[in-house]
Amino acid sequence: MIIPSSSITKADSAESSGSSAKKYVHSFNEGNKNMKEVLGGKGANLAEMTKIGIPVPFGFTIITDVCDYYSQKGEYPDGFAEQLEEKINLLEVKTIKKFGDLDNPLLVSVRSGAAVSMPGMMDTVLNLGLNDKTVEGLAKSTKNERGAYDSYRRFIHMFGNVVMGVSHDLFEEAIENIKKENGCEMDTDLTVDHLKKLVLEYKKIAEKHAGKSFPENPYEQLKLSIEAVFSSWDNDRAKTYRRLNNITGLRGTAVNVQAMVFGNMGENSGTGVAFTRDPATGAAEFYGEFLMNAQGEDVVAGIRTPLPISDLSNINKAVYDELLELKDKLEKHYKDMQDLEFTIEKGKLYLLQTRDGKRTAQAAVKIAADMVSEGLVTKKEALLNIDPSQLNQLLHPQLKASAKKEVIAKGLPASPGAAVGKVVFTADDAMEWATEKNEKVILVRKETSPEDIHGMHSAQGILTARGGITSHAAVVCRGMGKPCVSGCNDVMVNASAKKMIIGDLVVDEGDHITLDGGTGEVILGEMEMQKPDMVGDFETVMKWTDEIRELKVRTNADTPEDCKVAIEFGAEGIGLCRTEHMFFEEDRIHLVRQMILAKDEKGRKAPLSKLKKIQQGDFVGIFEAMKDRPVTIRLLDPPLHEFLPEKDTQIEELALEMKVDVSDLKDVISNLHEVNPMLGHRGCRLGITYPDIYRMQIQAIVEAAIEVSSHGMKANVEIEIPLVGEVAELKYLRKIVQTTIDEYGEKINFEYKIGTMIEIPRACLTANEIAKHADFFSFGTNDLTQLTYGYSRDDAGKFLPAYLDKGILNRDPMAGIDQKGVGGLMQICIELGRKDKSDLEIGICGEQGGDPESIEFCHKIGLDYVSCSPYRVPIARLAAAQAVLKS
Amino acid sequence: MIIPSSSITKADSAESSGSSAKKYVHSFNEGNKNMKEVLGGKGANLAEMTKIGIPVPFGFTIITDVCDYYSQKGEYPDGFAEQLEEKINLLEVKTIKKFGDLDNPLLVSVRSGAAVSMPGMMDTVLNLGLNDKTVEGLAKSTKNERGAYDSYRRFIHMFGNVVMGVSHDLFEEAIENIKKENGCEMDTDLTVDHLKKLVLEYKKIAEKHAGKSFPENPYEQLKLSIEAVFSSWDNDRAKTYRRLNNITGLRGTAVNVQAMVFGNMGENSGTGVAFTRDPATGAAEFYGEFLMNAQGEDVVAGIRTPLPISDLSNINKAVYDELLELKDKLEKHYKDMQDLEFTIEKGKLYLLQTRDGKRTAQAAVKIAADMVSEGLVTKKEALLNIDPSQLNQLLHPQLKASAKKEVIAKGLPASPGAAVGKVVFTADDAMEWATEKNEKVILVRKETSPEDIHGMHSAQGILTARGGITSHAAVVCRGMGKPCVSGCNDVMVNASAKKMIIGDLVVDEGDHITLDGGTGEVILGEMEMQKPDMVGDFETVMKWTDEIRELKVRTNADTPEDCKVAIEFGAEGIGLCRTEHMFFEEDRIHLVRQMILAKDEKGRKAPLSKLKKIQQGDFVGIFEAMKDRPVTIRLLDPPLHEFLPEKDTQIEELALEMKVDVSDLKDVISNLHEVNPMLGHRGCRLGITYPDIYRMQIQAIVEAAIEVSSHGMKANVEIEIPLVGEVAELKYLRKIVQTTIDEYGEKINFEYKIGTMIEIPRACLTANEIAKHADFFSFGTNDLTQLTYGYSRDDAGKFLPAYLDKGILNRDPMAGIDQKGVGGLMQICIELGRKDKSDLEIGICGEQGGDPESIEFCHKIGLDYVSCSPYRVPIARLAAAQAVLKS
Repeated sequence: MIIPSSSITKADSAESSGSSAKKYVHSFNEGNKNMKEVLGGKGANLAEMTKIGIPVPFGFTIITDVCDYYSQKGEYPDGFAEQLEEKINLLEVKTIKKFGDLDNPLLVSVRSGAAVSMPGMMDTVLNLGLNDKTVEGLAKSTKNERGAYDSYRRFIHMFGNVVMGVSHDLFEEAIENIKKENGCEMDTDLTVDHLKKLVLEYKKIAEKHAGKSFPENPYEQLKLSIEAVFSSWDNDRAKTYRRLNNITGLRGTAVNVQAMVFGNMGENSGTGVAFTRDPATGAAEFYGEFLMNAQGEDVVAGIRTPLPISDLSNINKAVYDELLELKDKLEKHYKDMQDLEFTIEKGKLYLLQTRDGKRTAQAAVKIAADMVSEGLVTKKEALLNIDPSQLNQLLHPQLKASAKKEVIAKGLPASPGAAVGKVVFTADDAMEWATEKNEKVILVRKETSPEDIHGMHSAQGILTARGGITSHAAVVCRGMGKPCVSGCNDVMVNASAKKMIIGDLVVDEGDHITLDGGTGEVILGEMEMQKPDMVGDFETVMKWTDEIRELKVRTNADTPEDCKVAIEFGAEGIGLCRTEHMFFEEDRIHLVRQMILAKDEKGRKAPLSKLKKIQQGDFVGIFEAMKDRPVTIRLLDPPLHEFLPEKDTQIEELALEMKVDVSDLKDVISNLHEVNPMLGHRGCRLGITYPDIYRMQIQAIVEAAIEVSSHGMKANVEIEIPLVGEVAELKYLRKIVQTTIDEYGEKINFEYKIGTMIEIPRACLTANEIAKHADFFSFGTNDLTQLTYGYSRDDAGKFLPAYLDKGILNRDPMAGIDQKGVGGLMQICIELGRKDKSDLEIGICGEQGGDPESIEFCHKIGLDYVSCSPYRVPIARLAAAQAVLKS
Repeated sequence: MIIPSSSITKADSAESSGSSAKKYVHSFNEGNKNMKEVLGGKGANLAEMTKIGIPVPFGFTIITDVCDYYSQKGEYPDGFAEQLEEKINLLEVKTIKKFGDLDNPLLVSVRSGAAVSMPGMMDTVLNLGLNDKTVEGLAKSTKNERGAYDSYRRFIHMFGNVVMGVSHDLFEEAIENIKKENGCEMDTDLTVDHLKKLVLEYKKIAEKHAGKSFPENPYEQLKLSIEAVFSSWDNDRAKTYRRLNNITGLRGTAVNVQAMVFGNMGENSGTGVAFTRDPATGAAEFYGEFLMNAQGEDVVAGIRTPLPISDLSNINKAVYDELLELKDKLEKHYKDMQDLEFTIEKGKLYLLQTRDGKRTAQAAVKIAADMVSEGLVTKKEALLNIDPSQLNQLLHPQLKASAKKEVIAKGLPASPGAAVGKVVFTADDAMEWATEKNEKVILVRKETSPEDIHGMHSAQGILTARGGITSHAAVVCRGMGKPCVSGCNDVMVNASAKKMIIGDLVVDEGDHITLDGGTGEVILGEMEMQKPDMVGDFETVMKWTDEIRELKVRTNADTPEDCKVAIEFGAEGIGLCRTEHMFFEEDRIHLVRQMILAKDEKGRKAPLSKLKKIQQGDFVGIFEAMKDRPVTIRLLDPPLHEFLPEKDTQIEELALEMKVDVSDLKDVISNLHEVNPMLGHRGCRLGITYPDIYRMQIQAIVEAAIEVSSHGMKANVEIEIPLVGEVAELKYLRKIVQTTIDEYGEKINFEYKIGTMIEIPRACLTANEIAKHADFFSFGTNDLTQLTYGYSRDDAGKFLPAYLDKGILNRDPMAGIDQKGVGGLMQICIELGRKDKSDLEIGICGEQGGDPESIEFCHKIGLDYVSCSPYRVPIARLAAAQAVLKS
């Protein structure tokens, strides 16, 4: 075999001397499922299936390192070309076919496959190796001329699109035209002659729009396809996907080259996609769909509506039974629900892929519970199969059962949950409306493609007119935990006119619709939602997490209502109660403003004493909701100007209301103005300059705790002083807190601690000093992240998108703990803080306390608890358990 | 001897068990000058003088620990009372006098004295032990009834004021009245009878205003005085002084109890204050003043104008010669210029105090140079005797020699240098005008007192109508490096009417005057100033620093003019050239605004290319001024909105000028608005989003460097990328910088480095990664301090004063490196940064780079250079040398 001289350039030998021994290409019988980093997920699973005797067409995998090398140097490592040649030769031997052979040509598929599944990269080129001559050889060897030309036109379409960069639509248009001209309804209606004409037409299209000739040489085809796979690693879609899914640290994609088997060789051939269990509900039922006389992309692209998998038993019982056997074998082997691709070539079954199946949260929970009762997996294995960040699907509202609804169409229930929003028809509109106008939108498309990912991310739910339950829209939505209704054939989508038509009904852009992804119903207008029940499998699984995890899980809650939700979700205490939220309510803001406008402590006395009564009531409610669970109450934190209006008209109104002079009020407001309020007069700095405000809050806390004790309860209070950066601040305020408490003498009949939030870098660096005066630490990672990076959450929008685009950051640092920087400070803080006080209680109450990866980090560095919003409590419980299981 | 039972309470023995062996009270013959921490500065020197045979009245010192104990517990440590009693007994034996004895009473002085000299604490009570009976004993034993009563009235006055808290003015008024009634001009004109009457009057005043009787019992007097000294340690004045002078870590003040000798026992008695050299000029001449028949406070309080010390030789040649001998002995012993207090009692000379004399910077430099040439000290010892922070006196302007001046009065040249400002008459006004109105003020007072410190600190210079060159005003001003004209008798100060009258001339509050502290001239109006020459002794001393120091000293300079000043002062390079300062000049701001208002890179092209030419010119000037010295140029740092106006009228003007729509311009400005601009879209974040701006700056730098090379010069450029917090930022921009440079190919004929400013906490924590892509680091401690503390320099004024008042902070963290927090991060950064790159150049360019204490820290942690404003370069050179000497 001769590889064209230009095709695989040898690297400069000096550059890679000594690396000639490295193995760059693995045959499928040379690997296993644990080699995902090297072979990619797809390659590792092909190797594993080969190993355990699943019928897999033979092939080989180019390892991910080659992609990395190629991306950085634009050439291949030394020794690669020889290894590739050797593996092609082996494939020819195994298949008894030859690349470019006129009688019995070797045809292959080329697929990308990184360690983590990643839509957005170049996916697949099928039938590679065909050209004007080998197509005849294929016709001869398969005795199916139509199948051969059908394969050829598919190859030119796919290669032209993904390798040569010619628009998909141009090929679609050509086939639609030829169908129309010849009165064919289905692709399968096209004759050999039609297909031969289409091949000529396709080649013209490819050459015209790519500006170069279509390569006839199979080696050249292969070389270009490999390069296209490598290049697709760094295209925008792939980068967006990695960013949105927080995928980092990968070396690139592998390339899988596999002998073709044909599902389009007549009515005893076919292809399909299946899940070993229902990915939407988790039911232990074989689930999937197939098309006879078709190639793989026909099923997933949603162009023809496929048949349910159970129908296969009617068409070919033996193949169906074999498939059932194989799926059981795979599930048992992988100990998780599998997502399969199969092809039937002239009655013979092949598996082309297996991977852990994406599923809804509901399915994940049910599958975990079922597999444990079936004895397939242990509790620990089952817990690791649930993605914690997906759980929020279960915790978010469903349609209210009793609500009346005007169902205007019904499609496939592709991803469960309910969504309400305004209709938009393009991914760009979805993103724009959602981010700029802050609108909830439903994205409606004929079918979705990887180009739509950003819009799907922005939408509440997705409705597609075409495509099945394994269509792009369905798979992606289940991954994202978004409701989806797919294959809704009643809907006519006119994206350019921005409307959809359902019978007589016209739904315009901006109209409200509701989707029920659990039933497939499309409903006109905005429906009411309700909370789902936390029972059954969910409860079972959550109990397992509690048996395993070491981190406590608390919640950030400011009202008795929040407390109740959080306790239902399993919260073990409040990690952050922000007292200022209480100040903004209508009955208080007036008093707060009176207090601020007072000239001195004397003037503040009256409004503070009224506020005390109100705050006391708030705390009573919270203590009663939380019972004896710990409640961390942060003293006033925001700068006072946040409580005053900014606009002239509002100021005038307020002046009238407060009976003060407008210009005096403006003076007060302008005196309080700050250039950088985040770094200004707030937190404990307020407590030190206005000790009477903190004293009032302590009194309210103490009096509330005494009050609930008369109901037989015992409050468990942790008084938290915010924004400490210097131990003297804490010493000073601790004394005020303690003195205020001591004034109640023997009435103090409840537990309390006095501690501090750790949110200033300097607090971490001087934690040994601060710990001497603190009964607990609680990391406020919102501010700590802002200060460690020098970012302001309010302003970072100006450059963060560019940073994420350019890959300077992989993730908004506010979303998860930056383990190097912020995490480094946290570790310094913990080490110093516990140096002379080994039992110092340390928790986290920043929003990152609900992020699974951050929770794993918190477990590793030895925190006592994480605290997050009520709806994230179950996620945190699972993530905390997984942290133990992973360590 | 019996100590009243209430006086010295024994501490709870359990509290201090085992400490009974500790020595709390040292006689003067039991210590030495190295025991300042224990005995205070005054006590240690009294012990030292006793040791080397100087005639010092005997006494003892209560150590600083007792003050600390007393402040914390309100009582004395176990064993203290016994030790005190024992030392009093010893003093009685040594002096052959007895406390409270009717014939030969022991009288003592009680003085405070911390390890560091500290005006603002209770200073002195003289003549303690006198009462209505012992005064008769004193009269008898001294055979000087007038002297005895004069001593008694002084005692009541001092004790009444400093121990009982009665206003000084009340006693002053009483003595003025009695003088007026009896036609006496001077205090010395008062007869015994007048003084007896005055004693009665004084006691009435003390008892009336203090609300308690004047204590007759000498032990009670002593006890109350000791307690007054201890309490004065924590009074506001003392705390202010410690804060302003950054004095921390002291345990308290010692108390010195010393047998009295009397300068007011007739015309063969006297008292004086002297410096072994001229503290204003440094001239090696004995310098001082004295009063016959007076007690110490008469000299320093400036009530009678004293005689120059040389006149003493006419009055008592033997005493004068002995004094000359003693001053030489002391200077030789202490190896530094000394500040002495002496008393002549009936012709016998006693020294009451010696300490290193405060001096002007000019004097410090001259004394250092002279003492080295005299062989008195080594260069190293000499350098350690100069206070670096004082040097700025030498570097600041003097009156222009040629200028015409309207001298309206002449006083004593008490502290050199010239000052211009608006006249104010109270310390409060001085502070208010200076800090709130940002006015330069001259504080004019009859005489100053410790209560005026805050106003003196705020003023440009001080003028007093009374007092000599050792008056409070003079001493404090020399310490502060502020011009002072004292004892200006022509000036009638009317503080309540806020005016001063000089002959016919009335100068009102707010009028401009100019002081020349070198000549004592007071000049009407604002005089022009000029830079002093850096020659002679100054040059000599600076050369010594260069021989010793290890830190390089660079300067922060943005213009060729700044560069020239800095080089004259010895700068070895530019550590920070802020390119944006160049953007604000009138010929550029228009282009900068055009650039900002452009919609895209294309629109920015034209203004950027014009800006490039201008910046190139700037850099040529800087490179030529700096020759081959390194020049660190920071790329654009501030957020773009800083270049646009904020007010409506300005926006309208700009719109007209730029020919754009007002509302469009407002949109642009409002789009650029940030909530926390310090944490916003600035520094390298701008470079990443607007790479063309950075590219323009690089081109300007490169083209300037090429241009100067044609003049035979070699530029040495360090290109600095600001605000890096994540290595990917630096990688991304370094590539742009490098690519831009590479475009000039072989034209690049100069040295360059590409590095980064370290000013984000995260940069310190990830310095190992960042160092891989940086040729140098430069700490931007302004931003680093703000982020480490979470302070905004623009807003901290809202709480910092309260923090300093309450002692939560000892110093504004912007003024000097916070060694625990910010310094901790710096050390982490250096360790990580040099881990794999041991030769990484690391400097500091924040304003703290000119602060002596911070420079010592920078030396300790291994920086390569400090960079500071041109005028601080000599300070930095000296501080860097001292850092080596101290380590």
